[in-house]
Amino acid sequence: MYLHHPTREDFDLPTVLHALSDPQRLRIVVSLAEHDEPARCGSFGLDVTKSTLTHHFRVLREAGVITQELVGTSKLNSLRREDLDACFPGLLDAVLASALTAAA
Amino acid sequence: MYLHHPTREDFDLPTVLHALSDPQRLRIVVSLAEHDEPARCGSFGLDVTKSTLTHHFRVLREAGVITQELVGTSKLNSLRREDLDACFPGLLDAVLASALTAAA
Repeated sequence: MYLHHPTREDFDLPTVLHALSDPQRLRIVVSLAEHDEPARCGSFGLDVTKSTLTHHFRVLREAGVITQELVGTSKLNSLRREDLDACFPGLLDAVLASALTAAA
Repeated sequence: MYLHHPTREDFDLPTVLHALSDPQRLRIVVSLAEHDEPARCGSFGLDVTKSTLTHHFRVLREAGVITQELVGTSKLNSLRREDLDACFPGLLDAVLASALTAAA
């Protein structure tokens, strides 16, 4: 299975904002930022169907927010923090801070 | 015509990110930020139908990104910069900076 990942040159601000504009996807991003290590799709405790979960991870990957690496039959997800910070300085930090404030 | 505006307490991060996740709406927000004065819906030079334009402004208003004030038969739009900065510190600035970089 080939998993497309956009390069920094292909990053698009509206696409990234759209990827971040869903509560479940925000929760995934916040969790990846907090733990700072690759995590399997099923490890985020989201109460959604498997196909919805797959959709959310694909939207994040195709926007450039995360990388997905195939390991056996699983996908390991990582936040593309450096790439996001390089293309949209301050955006991820502001989103994460606001998301954590809202959740507190 | 009654125009609903959410209070700061009703601001929702995913809703605001969604409002900002469209190229035309981003252009409206960037323009309002640059000129810092209320502007009519038709003054943004967007090549879209009137109903699409109305939709974009409604999405921005209902998310709390702009205020719309009725003046005669027109609506005057303003950016809710203070409210956004209070609820989501750094977010609007990061989005504006990234949008301006992308447009440069």
